[in-house]
Amino acid sequence: MSWNSPSVVVVGTVAFDSIKTPFGERSRIVGGAGTYIGWSTSRLGIGAGLVSVIGEDFPQTELESMTEAGMDLEGISCPKGGKSFFWSGSYHMDMNGRDTLATELNVLADFKPEIPESWKNARYVMLGNIDPTLQASVLDQMEQRPELVVLDTMNFWMDIALEPLKAVIARVDVLTINDEEARQLSGERSLMKAARAVLKMGPRYLVIKKGEHGALLFHMEGEEIRYFFCPALPLEDVVDPTGAGDTFAGGFIGHVARKGSTDFETLKQAVVVGSALASFTCEAFGTDGIRSVNPMEIEERIASFRRMTDWKREQVEA
Amino acid sequence: MSWNSPSVVVVGTVAFDSIKTPFGERSRIVGGAGTYIGWSTSRLGIGAGLVSVIGEDFPQTELESMTEAGMDLEGISCPKGGKSFFWSGSYHMDMNGRDTLATELNVLADFKPEIPESWKNARYVMLGNIDPTLQASVLDQMEQRPELVVLDTMNFWMDIALEPLKAVIARVDVLTINDEEARQLSGERSLMKAARAVLKMGPRYLVIKKGEHGALLFHMEGEEIRYFFCPALPLEDVVDPTGAGDTFAGGFIGHVARKGSTDFETLKQAVVVGSALASFTCEAFGTDGIRSVNPMEIEERIASFRRMTDWKREQVEA
Repeated sequence: MSWNSPSVVVVGTVAFDSIKTPFGERSRIVGGAGTYIGWSTSRLGIGAGLVSVIGEDFPQTELESMTEAGMDLEGISCPKGGKSFFWSGSYHMDMNGRDTLATELNVLADFKPEIPESWKNARYVMLGNIDPTLQASVLDQMEQRPELVVLDTMNFWMDIALEPLKAVIARVDVLTINDEEARQLSGERSLMKAARAVLKMGPRYLVIKKGEHGALLFHMEGEEIRYFFCPALPLEDVVDPTGAGDTFAGGFIGHVARKGSTDFETLKQAVVVGSALASFTCEAFGTDGIRSVNPMEIEERIASFRRMTDWKREQVEA
Repeated sequence: MSWNSPSVVVVGTVAFDSIKTPFGERSRIVGGAGTYIGWSTSRLGIGAGLVSVIGEDFPQTELESMTEAGMDLEGISCPKGGKSFFWSGSYHMDMNGRDTLATELNVLADFKPEIPESWKNARYVMLGNIDPTLQASVLDQMEQRPELVVLDTMNFWMDIALEPLKAVIARVDVLTINDEEARQLSGERSLMKAARAVLKMGPRYLVIKKGEHGALLFHMEGEEIRYFFCPALPLEDVVDPTGAGDTFAGGFIGHVARKGSTDFETLKQAVVVGSALASFTCEAFGTDGIRSVNPMEIEERIASFRRMTDWKREQVEA
């Protein structure tokens, strides 16, 4: 492993999105899970190595910005004549739902993640939301078991590829899904029971992302289930939530990487840092909210999370 | 004001409910906002004075249990030949929605709250969810401005009695509503903007109840909006959420009463105590979950809330 190989390897789409929200619309802006994750870890001073595929239509200037921000793009392939993955969606008025208007797989249809040789000993791996078979192939290529593997997925894969999904879930440390997906995956209505069931499938940790309602981290200590809750910051305006979950994941694994620890206390902090970074993404279209955030702004936002749940605990008793 | 007059006066229904949830059903069990609020404050050692109306069908044994628990029932009238208010509802599988199957107003149709003479100097008043005109009539009867008036209401009154509702909201200190109601009342999509708008209507504090997603407390300090968030405890099973909001309100004002303070720090704690008490109500049908809770169980649950949002704040920075 060369001295400057990335400690975090990220697999996920680097793509174009067209987005419509009650605040306006943007056409063919840069998006994709890998992009958001990469920008997010970069804000913590962690230069992730991205494994992805783009088309020849992807702007060179954007790749240069990503490299300048510290991302290593050696793992991004660009097949001749290919077109980038494209997604288009429209958010409902309350921002809690969205309709997919178009999905063009393009180069993603034949994507086979290839991990650069010097990245195969990376300590941290973030498997963004793609086909679980591809997520598994990334783990197969690693020369040693990473210290922490985080896997993000969605109900789509539960519907069409449940067995491969379960197989890869069994191999990771952290699974990040939303509350409805936790219920679907476990068949349990109670989130607590769902969490127990999912943790029996293999992961040491489960993060349940609830969007504007915050995030829950679950962990078994022996037979006891432990949980931690981080609220979402109430924002003046949620302009565009696209990529918020990926930004969260990037902040989460980025914090683990900068702390060099995977214990429960560090992962609680990682949930707070991920939530703080995700809040920036929601405040503007595409990656505009996250790409220029500086450490002081992050610290200020983390302080808001602190204030938001602080209460004088000693004095509750009458 | 006699030495033993209640310091908390509660206005709300004392009634019968028939409830169906995925966990079973119960027919004509004791319920009503006033009932849940009264049981909740009683668990904190605060004997509320209930102002309500019941029918002759209401069980004497139940009234005796309430009195034994410390509630003062002098404000409950019982018209000759009257039947108690009755509500029947069925919860959806996910417990986040419910259908009202029947509402029989009965004695509630002619209810005019009458505050007993010796209660008219009470320091704390909890106006449960009833017609805003009746809520206002309670305030009119008070001989001096209470230290804290909490008002609970719902979208139903926004739909049919918006002006009387706004008039009474302008006279209270704390308004408790859910997130959709805050949006409806303010016409703002963003909860933050909705909170600002509602606080301009008069109340010093706004509590936004989000059920399984917790509760937010908003407060203006000069031009700055301050907020506090308390999650809901993830429960093994939510057996019956009926009365959870009222239990929250009872715990909230009960905590204020036992502390004798209405500052922001005390109100944050009140949100935690209210949330803790509400969690007991959700664990069983009707008032079964709350009526036998003891101080040690409450402290244990408050400790769970503490653990749930605790993270090592000093060490987040890399």
